[in-house]
Amino acid sequence: MTARQMKLGLSMRGLGYHVAAWRHPDVPAGGYLDYRHFLHNAQMAERGKFDMIFFADGVGIRMRDEPPGSLPRSGYEVAELEPITLLSAIAPMTTHIGLVTTASTTYNEPYHIARKFASLDHISGGRAGWNVVTSWSEAEAKNFNRDSHLDYATRYERAQEFLEVVLGLWDSWEEDAFLHDKQAGIFFDPDRLHVLDHKGKYFSVRGPLNVGRTPQGRPVIVQAGASLQGQEMAAASAEVVYTLQHTIGPAQAYYASVKGFLPKYGRPQNAVTIMPGLIPVVGRTEQEARDKFDRLQELVEPLVGLARIAPAIGDLTGYPLDGPVPDASHDAEMRSGAEQLRERARRENLSIRELYLAVAGGTGLRVIGTPAQVADKMEEWFVNRAADGFNVTPTHLPGGIDDFVELVVPELQRRGLFRREYEGTTLRENLGLPRPENRYARGREKARKTA
Amino acid sequence: MTARQMKLGLSMRGLGYHVAAWRHPDVPAGGYLDYRHFLHNAQMAERGKFDMIFFADGVGIRMRDEPPGSLPRSGYEVAELEPITLLSAIAPMTTHIGLVTTASTTYNEPYHIARKFASLDHISGGRAGWNVVTSWSEAEAKNFNRDSHLDYATRYERAQEFLEVVLGLWDSWEEDAFLHDKQAGIFFDPDRLHVLDHKGKYFSVRGPLNVGRTPQGRPVIVQAGASLQGQEMAAASAEVVYTLQHTIGPAQAYYASVKGFLPKYGRPQNAVTIMPGLIPVVGRTEQEARDKFDRLQELVEPLVGLARIAPAIGDLTGYPLDGPVPDASHDAEMRSGAEQLRERARRENLSIRELYLAVAGGTGLRVIGTPAQVADKMEEWFVNRAADGFNVTPTHLPGGIDDFVELVVPELQRRGLFRREYEGTTLRENLGLPRPENRYARGREKARKTA
Repeated sequence: MTARQMKLGLSMRGLGYHVAAWRHPDVPAGGYLDYRHFLHNAQMAERGKFDMIFFADGVGIRMRDEPPGSLPRSGYEVAELEPITLLSAIAPMTTHIGLVTTASTTYNEPYHIARKFASLDHISGGRAGWNVVTSWSEAEAKNFNRDSHLDYATRYERAQEFLEVVLGLWDSWEEDAFLHDKQAGIFFDPDRLHVLDHKGKYFSVRGPLNVGRTPQGRPVIVQAGASLQGQEMAAASAEVVYTLQHTIGPAQAYYASVKGFLPKYGRPQNAVTIMPGLIPVVGRTEQEARDKFDRLQELVEPLVGLARIAPAIGDLTGYPLDGPVPDASHDAEMRSGAEQLRERARRENLSIRELYLAVAGGTGLRVIGTPAQVADKMEEWFVNRAADGFNVTPTHLPGGIDDFVELVVPELQRRGLFRREYEGTTLRENLGLPRPENRYARGREKARKTA
Repeated sequence: MTARQMKLGLSMRGLGYHVAAWRHPDVPAGGYLDYRHFLHNAQMAERGKFDMIFFADGVGIRMRDEPPGSLPRSGYEVAELEPITLLSAIAPMTTHIGLVTTASTTYNEPYHIARKFASLDHISGGRAGWNVVTSWSEAEAKNFNRDSHLDYATRYERAQEFLEVVLGLWDSWEEDAFLHDKQAGIFFDPDRLHVLDHKGKYFSVRGPLNVGRTPQGRPVIVQAGASLQGQEMAAASAEVVYTLQHTIGPAQAYYASVKGFLPKYGRPQNAVTIMPGLIPVVGRTEQEARDKFDRLQELVEPLVGLARIAPAIGDLTGYPLDGPVPDASHDAEMRSGAEQLRERARRENLSIRELYLAVAGGTGLRVIGTPAQVADKMEEWFVNRAADGFNVTPTHLPGGIDDFVELVVPELQRRGLFRREYEGTTLRENLGLPRPENRYARGREKARKTA
């Protein structure tokens, strides 16, 4: 038996996760709308044998111009390509890498989402994954006939029912439903087509889905449950869990908590792959890595830095940048993340400038150093059950992924922590996940056995 | 100046437009979910210098099992890939051909649609087009929280507002909004970003769209207005109009009617390209063409034939197939098409079998013959202003498009009716359509001139 292997994902939204990424001299500033930019990053990740690429998403410009004048200086999540469309265009130009994106349950309909991800799974030969989220921003609400966003509880309840409907629709057709018997003129077996007929609190969806069962059985389900409720939801249905963790202790606690919920849902410990975010800044020497990072930090405009923390802390214009973070009482829009940030400022006693610079490079485990130093940290988290793998969120693209694949991946491979070749051709196969059975086929099998 | 040139589109839904297509020995019966099947057809159309490929669409299995047992024998619109996703995967594997699909305004949100088509336009380098439709079927309504579909008037009113919102969102960013001034740290010019703030009867959409202005300015708008109201809507906003016509007289009347509305909306006669559906069955001899068609007709199961006419005529199970079509009073679900079909049975005095065989091959202008005969008919319609081009709906795929490109396209080129090379790289350029100005840029320009 081979030793437990690390899993790797590449978050490749926009130009990278450092707020000043777009100003980096090597970054193609127009890349956020350029298919070739994304294709390069995806192909580089595939060359590095990554399990998947991943897109976060918002259906609107969620960032406010707060402080005023900050938005036009930000190249972050302002304009981008719709990610399902983009992943589909990446599919034929790649062969093994998983194609995962966020799609919100808040302003969508389950039938559309079931259809699109099933189609992507067919087109890519079994490489689709769906990151199930809710929408928390007012900016998105206002693009969808609402004045304000749904409250937390409603959003999550709706999300749960939404997911249930999508999973149901994906079972519309059994594996062997399509007979294609040209001679007899029978196209499909009606006993293997199932009408969902869902009637719930938020959705009435009859079905069946007009897409056949997909190469993976169904796309891989991804979630990012931060709250305890979110963790349990993830343990109940997710197959990959993203999380943002900064230090190993809380990461281990989170890992244990999510895995601890699994038995309650009759799922084995390896049913869920837990992938904390990782921000690697790699250099051939530690100094080179530090210089790389400093170069980006120097490009952070104070207005853009303040905007990065405003959603959690409020607009701090007027306070001295090198003074302490005031205890503003601010109604934070995004639930998870906001509290963490304020706590961090208190704990580390950061000035305003230090706080925004601390998060300007993205959120999650940041490692600045040599390939060996980055691999050390990853190995430590992996071996000590703080992670089953990592979701890499580079500071800037394509530089961040080019460096990682060239320098860190070979080091992980040398240590026997990461694959040298893909195990299979579907995302499920590479993640080592079982192929889900169709609920109706299972029912039929049971009935046959007890008869 | 070059003579007026014909435009060509390929409708490439599923396995083709003949109800028995899937039983044809050369048709890959599983192709309806196979990306490679669609890619072949798209690439073949591009080899033939077609302006565009096109997908019809439904968000549900619209066909009923009427008569009972007919649905499992039908390989038509039962399962398929979601077309925006599919077109996006075709984009990087083609270079010039337009990528057009239907997306309904009835169970969608304008923000999603604006975003997806804008993304496809970016990814494809300016080749996206949107066929604006409404959803008329109960099957679709039931997949979207409704018991029945919206009435005709509501659907059209909603569609009109939907289109208005989408056009507004596509103007969110002016052409030159993104400055990417790395030195000064200015990413975009806030004066060139516009908030739509639409508040209407059906939609409240604030905007702006989180996708920048697209390579074509905006995707091409396609409509298929059959009713007089639909014709006027098309003349007001469409750039391509699909229509189903069987004979030249009514086709000319339709053509004149749509073009007649154009001056009312301040649009020149060439602002709209009118493309009737064309079903070509081509052989090297007329007999070979007839044999090809007969071969498909022989594969029509009576149940499947009856199902084809049931939505318009009702379930005729029990009536003798070779007897007359009874004057059933049936509440037709699909508005346009139903009346045409009943009228046709009366006019041509068709038996039930003759009626279903008459429509089994698809709807529109059918020409069975040699390349010269097919080209003759196309030329006749084109020269006599019954058409600006044709939307080819092959009986089966890939055979239907392979034949057309190999045999008919060279004949059209020899006659100087059709291009030998693409004129440009965007769909707009090839259709000879102007690049739309951003409404705000136009406003700015006017203000500058009158100042």
